[in-house]
Amino acid sequence: MKTMNEIQTLKGFRDFLPQKMAVRNEAIKRLREVFEKYGFEELQTPSLEYREVLLGKYGEEAEKLMYLFKDPGGRDVGLKYDLTVPLARVAASYPDLPKPFKRYQIQPVWRAEKPQKGRYREIYQCDIDTIGSSSPLSDAEIIAVINDSLKVLGFTNYKIRINSRSVLFSTMEKSGIPEKMWLSAIQSIDKLNKKPQEEIEKELTDKGLGFEQIQDIFGFLKKAEPDEFLKKVVDLANKMGVKENLVFDPILSRGLDYYTGPIFESVVEEPKIGSVTGGGRYDKLLKTLGGPDLPATGTTIGLDRVCDVIEELNLWPDINPTPTKVLVTVFSKEFLIQSIKAAKMLRGAGINTEIYPDERVKLDKQLKYADKKGIPFVVIIGPEEALKKSVVIKSLKTGEQKTVDLKELLSQISNF
Amino acid sequence: MKTMNEIQTLKGFRDFLPQKMAVRNEAIKRLREVFEKYGFEELQTPSLEYREVLLGKYGEEAEKLMYLFKDPGGRDVGLKYDLTVPLARVAASYPDLPKPFKRYQIQPVWRAEKPQKGRYREIYQCDIDTIGSSSPLSDAEIIAVINDSLKVLGFTNYKIRINSRSVLFSTMEKSGIPEKMWLSAIQSIDKLNKKPQEEIEKELTDKGLGFEQIQDIFGFLKKAEPDEFLKKVVDLANKMGVKENLVFDPILSRGLDYYTGPIFESVVEEPKIGSVTGGGRYDKLLKTLGGPDLPATGTTIGLDRVCDVIEELNLWPDINPTPTKVLVTVFSKEFLIQSIKAAKMLRGAGINTEIYPDERVKLDKQLKYADKKGIPFVVIIGPEEALKKSVVIKSLKTGEQKTVDLKELLSQISNF
Repeated sequence: MKTMNEIQTLKGFRDFLPQKMAVRNEAIKRLREVFEKYGFEELQTPSLEYREVLLGKYGEEAEKLMYLFKDPGGRDVGLKYDLTVPLARVAASYPDLPKPFKRYQIQPVWRAEKPQKGRYREIYQCDIDTIGSSSPLSDAEIIAVINDSLKVLGFTNYKIRINSRSVLFSTMEKSGIPEKMWLSAIQSIDKLNKKPQEEIEKELTDKGLGFEQIQDIFGFLKKAEPDEFLKKVVDLANKMGVKENLVFDPILSRGLDYYTGPIFESVVEEPKIGSVTGGGRYDKLLKTLGGPDLPATGTTIGLDRVCDVIEELNLWPDINPTPTKVLVTVFSKEFLIQSIKAAKMLRGAGINTEIYPDERVKLDKQLKYADKKGIPFVVIIGPEEALKKSVVIKSLKTGEQKTVDLKELLSQISNF
Repeated sequence: MKTMNEIQTLKGFRDFLPQKMAVRNEAIKRLREVFEKYGFEELQTPSLEYREVLLGKYGEEAEKLMYLFKDPGGRDVGLKYDLTVPLARVAASYPDLPKPFKRYQIQPVWRAEKPQKGRYREIYQCDIDTIGSSSPLSDAEIIAVINDSLKVLGFTNYKIRINSRSVLFSTMEKSGIPEKMWLSAIQSIDKLNKKPQEEIEKELTDKGLGFEQIQDIFGFLKKAEPDEFLKKVVDLANKMGVKENLVFDPILSRGLDYYTGPIFESVVEEPKIGSVTGGGRYDKLLKTLGGPDLPATGTTIGLDRVCDVIEELNLWPDINPTPTKVLVTVFSKEFLIQSIKAAKMLRGAGINTEIYPDERVKLDKQLKYADKKGIPFVVIIGPEEALKKSVVIKSLKTGEQKTVDLKELLSQISNF
């Protein structure tokens, strides 16, 4: 037999206790509403995929972080590493899906990263993508969804940075950089928001670029303008109501190299969370992954990160740590039936009500239980109340309490 | 590069396309409301646990069905096989959790069963349990939750069968069955609802029981009465409103041997789904699993099975296959801006609205898209409408259409 110390949460993973679920469920509820308001529909895919499906997108670097193994039948399988590969697989598996296929997906993915504070190996990803549309309207819509998402999460001070790979590539070309150096140079430039320009210049020098080439890059970037497609995207996003939060940022590049058009990232500045969404257009990726040859655009929202920050900074002080609104206490065995009746009445009115299950436990211990769980109200029915068909309602937040007629319990609790 | 045929859903697993998600999300929403109405709170635990934690409960039989493997760091881990083991682990990991701890958990578990129609290797389980209460009220509450759950899912013709292990054990004792034979004999008797009595009698004879012993068993079972604890549970459940659907069934035994008191199972008779919930009191199990020495009671609800039946028999014909209510079509490039305005207006009023992203696609193809997806309404703004500041609303269910002022779009769509 094992002892308690021997059974524990797997390192690098975490439990979501009810208190943590309160913020997560509220965030997911708000985000779902936004996604569905724009006509995105939910998709869920299995946790496991064939190994060869998983390895289609990423290089050896990622393979090391994947949970690949043989299933009990000896097949080579793995836990999904992102939500894009399953999306490509779904697009291939169901060629009859009406296009454009606009889906959102909120599911865990697994990455065996070095565990550290705030970084876990099972992450809830939240992806929104449109498959089968090459229209700038689809990119604009993704941006509008990002904008609305950040708003419903309660963020007011944020920027959605937008750029296009073609802006970066044409800058490289005009600066005379050899094509094989483009991605590497762009990766350095992407850090301009975090590091001083001199450091980036040094990095580019170390990568073998000449002084004039580097000066050209920065010169061209300063004067860079959105290309035609990006202009349309910005215009349409603004018409959808995004406006002042959308900024053209010619140095934005995003790490991944599969984007083919617009790229976008959003940064929350207050509270200082940093990047919380990232995405762009990827017209070639689905085919590369073995899926159909369809254009696509989308974004990922860093749900775990957002929830952690909301919790840590207590940004949603009004979210109750428990869905339970009332604890009906049990005074003693004799009055159990009255307590059950009161609980039934409250539940019948749609009020989440717990009844303390053990009448042998002293009343003050029952109250402490409610307090520890964050249940806002308790109801007490003792001998006097039972006689007068009344109940005591007590608010655990204010300490206030009053005795009311049993008949008035519902209206009194609602207006306490 | 892979071809389309080479990337597919892992055998034995399945995708939940949006249409399937509609029923699932609705079922989960309704169930959550019931659970929270009774003060149960949500818990989520990681998909992976240490191998030794997973192997605590089950024998070799189950081990063969488990997804056990080494993670990239070489640790022995596995995908969770049920939601009870993680619950025990959580109870051990967080000794300060207020007790009673009433949690619900809706998450996948993995079992490498032989794939067959309706049986998958990744199953969504839905468990409701109370830890730390030995009161009959807690069992009664679980039964009330089951009753309300079946009601909100729309089932009217069902029975919640209830029994106690002690009823079965005392029957065995009184019939003179040696203790080591009890479980085996009970397993045969459990089949009485599915097989004729003669067959069960033959099975018991084959197991080595004598003619008189077998007659005694059936005789005692006929006269069996609930024990004191079970009587209290039934009484309290009835006071909570369960009533006519709760039946004492002395032959009910449930397969698993870890129950210590009441056991319950519910059977939906119309439509003929069979058993959809199963559970009972298990006061020793948490300690056996390495968790704390706490009493517990609970049930599992066969969510996947329930959803599959609801879908197959179209029991919820009013559930739309998509959350989208309106498709705003785009007549041509010139009228795109009007369509965006109409969509923005609808979304602002909380109406889920999709806008067709490509103005080059002919109108009738846009309508077909809406029809295929099950979107109930389309909005059309052509040259005439744009001129008169009006819109055409068409119901795809009835075929009816009318032209209304743009200002009246919201009220007209809501009352169509």
